Amino acid sequence: MLSSIFEPESIAVIGASSNEMKWGGRILKNILSGFRGPVYPVNPKEANIQGLTTYSSILDIPYDVEMAVVTVPASSVLPVVEECGEKGVKGLVMISAGFSETGSAGAELEKKLVSIVRKYGMRMIGPNTLGIINKSVDLNASIIGRLPSPGSISFITQSGTLGLALADWTIDMGLGLCKVISIGNKADIDDTDLIEYLNNDPSTGVIAMYVEGLKRGRDFIQAARRIKKPVIVLKTGRSKKGARAVFSHTGSIAGSDEIYSAAFRQAGVLRVDTIEEVFDAALAFSCQPLPRRNNVAILSNGGGASIVASDECERQGINIVDFTEETRKKIKDILPEYASSSNPIDTAGTVSYKLYREMINALLIDQNVDALIVIYVHSPMTNARPPADAVLEMKQRNHKPIIACWMGGAGTEEGINILKSGCLPNYSVPERAVRALAALIKHREFLERVKIGDDVPAQRCA
Amino acid sequence: MLSSIFEPESIAVIGASSNEMKWGGRILKNILSGFRGPVYPVNPKEANIQGLTTYSSILDIPYDVEMAVVTVPASSVLPVVEECGEKGVKGLVMISAGFSETGSAGAELEKKLVSIVRKYGMRMIGPNTLGIINKSVDLNASIIGRLPSPGSISFITQSGTLGLALADWTIDMGLGLCKVISIGNKADIDDTDLIEYLNNDPSTGVIAMYVEGLKRGRDFIQAARRIKKPVIVLKTGRSKKGARAVFSHTGSIAGSDEIYSAAFRQAGVLRVDTIEEVFDAALAFSCQPLPRRNNVAILSNGGGASIVASDECERQGINIVDFTEETRKKIKDILPEYASSSNPIDTAGTVSYKLYREMINALLIDQNVDALIVIYVHSPMTNARPPADAVLEMKQRNHKPIIACWMGGAGTEEGINILKSGCLPNYSVPERAVRALAALIKHREFLERVKIGDDVPAQRCA
Repeated sequence: MLSSIFEPESIAVIGASSNEMKWGGRILKNILSGFRGPVYPVNPKEANIQGLTTYSSILDIPYDVEMAVVTVPASSVLPVVEECGEKGVKGLVMISAGFSETGSAGAELEKKLVSIVRKYGMRMIGPNTLGIINKSVDLNASIIGRLPSPGSISFITQSGTLGLALADWTIDMGLGLCKVISIGNKADIDDTDLIEYLNNDPSTGVIAMYVEGLKRGRDFIQAARRIKKPVIVLKTGRSKKGARAVFSHTGSIAGSDEIYSAAFRQAGVLRVDTIEEVFDAALAFSCQPLPRRNNVAILSNGGGASIVASDECERQGINIVDFTEETRKKIKDILPEYASSSNPIDTAGTVSYKLYREMINALLIDQNVDALIVIYVHSPMTNARPPADAVLEMKQRNHKPIIACWMGGAGTEEGINILKSGCLPNYSVPERAVRALAALIKHREFLERVKIGDDVPAQRCA
Repeated sequence: MLSSIFEPESIAVIGASSNEMKWGGRILKNILSGFRGPVYPVNPKEANIQGLTTYSSILDIPYDVEMAVVTVPASSVLPVVEECGEKGVKGLVMISAGFSETGSAGAELEKKLVSIVRKYGMRMIGPNTLGIINKSVDLNASIIGRLPSPGSISFITQSGTLGLALADWTIDMGLGLCKVISIGNKADIDDTDLIEYLNNDPSTGVIAMYVEGLKRGRDFIQAARRIKKPVIVLKTGRSKKGARAVFSHTGSIAGSDEIYSAAFRQAGVLRVDTIEEVFDAALAFSCQPLPRRNNVAILSNGGGASIVASDECERQGINIVDFTEETRKKIKDILPEYASSSNPIDTAGTVSYKLYREMINALLIDQNVDALIVIYVHSPMTNARPPADAVLEMKQRNHKPIIACWMGGAGTEEGINILKSGCLPNYSVPERAVRALAALIKHREFLERVKIGDDVPAQRCA
């Protein structure tokens, strides 16, 4: 049934407007920019909006309508939703605000809204949502002005504005997104519904969430345990003042932070501490397999960067493994005499395509190595592209995860673009690269120890 | 005496080359791109290099030479340095590598090098350095291809390549740098010399350091205690493998990590864990005063972002303060009814110039508030510039520190550029903004409890 919202055949926009500065105008425009099915504006005061025949009521539309986006003021929502039910609409995206987030009168109104939704067997996102995006069908029923690059990351956000700013940011980062869901007040569809839906959604590979509070905590945890796709959560409201702000923001009760942490661990949900970590981890999951164990090899052309990476590995419990005798011999042949041939490997500045290619090959086929971090430290005398080409070529021959860190200013761009084109996760500093790898390792552990059920893991193991 | 290196009247480049892919060619070119004093290439095989009369030996130069950059192979260094001494050179930047970092024979050579340097009373950076930059006199005696924006951050790095990649990166970030010093093997000038020199350098406001190991640990700590300017250190080699890599990288012994942490605390040195934190903190120090206490006000147009900021404040021990009765009344008048008027403040989407201006003013003059974090969360319906203008205007009227966080994609750029133009530190996510403020607070505590001596603090207190 959630597919009626994310993959509708047809859409009505109730409260549509010619004015793109109004929500009903902007969202209509965004839908029209990509969605290929029929779209029907509804507005009793207009006959034509954005070039489309406009209807006074959804009941006047002479065709089937599967999904409706509602942007009218809260006071007009109930009769509008009643009409949607009569019309046979299956899914609602309730942009309208002024419900439980505003106090007890709003909460009463929200109860009535839900009872109408249930009476007709509809499902609803919101109210108080900024909309949804489903890149797989080029549907942008939100106020975000543009669609992300296609990808396998689905992002559920309880905070509308923060979520949409982040979606905007990830578009700039070139992160591939599949769905963006501003979950709003969760009066009907909540976190649990969504993770179950996304688990069965073939285009979603990893689920990233911004959560202020969960409504059906126990159900969520039970559902999460059965989900083999990685679920990354930034759960806020840890602090007292933060929890107070959560309440005034969306009416959720933040709950005891320790209880959340323990429950997430039990369910195999990756809890991270910062916004950066959510998307850094999501990026790694979206394009790399899981490592078989936690043994990493680090390759760098600069000693300093490999030391920074080693320190972070130790903090994250990642083992900087000793190579086999055979690999050590190979490395000595490949590297200049003065370079360090033990892990972490520092090529002492040398950074040719040939050297990186041979080194990466030697490291990836070492049976002790489960994952590889490749670092390139830019200098004006080196070229960022050849080592990126080498990573890409070797990646295609091997299924162990590779995480890249191309460091430096504008001179690294060409190399970074090569990495992106090959779906290699790249990070600006070694610490972020290591933490992303740590997320992959933790999820593999969850799959072994925590996850239940017979589903095939979405993420293949190297 | 270190001024002979950082502010020389004249420079010789020994091992100069016409080939810019060689170090002696590139560094000469970089020096010529900005330095306004006389520059003398030295190379026995050429008569003219990069348009300049070239000398066979430094002894042939018919003018005084204050500083020499040496790029010849290690095997030729000793006689060259002897000649520098005879010539009356005062400062050396020893780019040449192949000394203690390569083993015991190299260490012997380094000892001989130092004894010649000492015999003539010269001072030397290196060997095995990638050079130095002093933006205050437009001197780039390094292999970095471009000069940073002018600023008050001086950066000392033990890792050449990492340090220079970081310098390159900070240039792209628009961070203002004063000096960049690749410290090399520290055979003569070491960390302690440099922090003492930079403490007396009027153009340096904050000292950022990448350290793998300290040579005169006790001296460093004693010197650091007397330095009132903020000293931010990323000390690596925490892990066993990291420490091993440190040794093979620069020959330093990383030392017990706990000892370092304790010593840094005693000396009032801010130890940070990641590369991002070094520069995030440095940015805040370079343009904001210190808060009087640790009470912060958080202003945001989006609830989610202010909750994320609140959580990080709690982690960092920053107090989200209660406002005075008077401020609370003012806020209620300014904000729409449905917005949250307690700290953290969420304007519920409203983000006009007038509202931000009035709110910032009310918060800054509240006697309970010592610092302000202003967050702007971008949406397609809002403009990132007006709130940035408001921050800038109010900053000029008040001396409390303000930290900004403009979140979102390309649409935020105009606002971010306004903030940069007004020297307002801006961060892409709330957590980084809060950690930067935490660094300011910690340094103010160091000034009260740890720092000794009569120097006037470089950083004024709000």
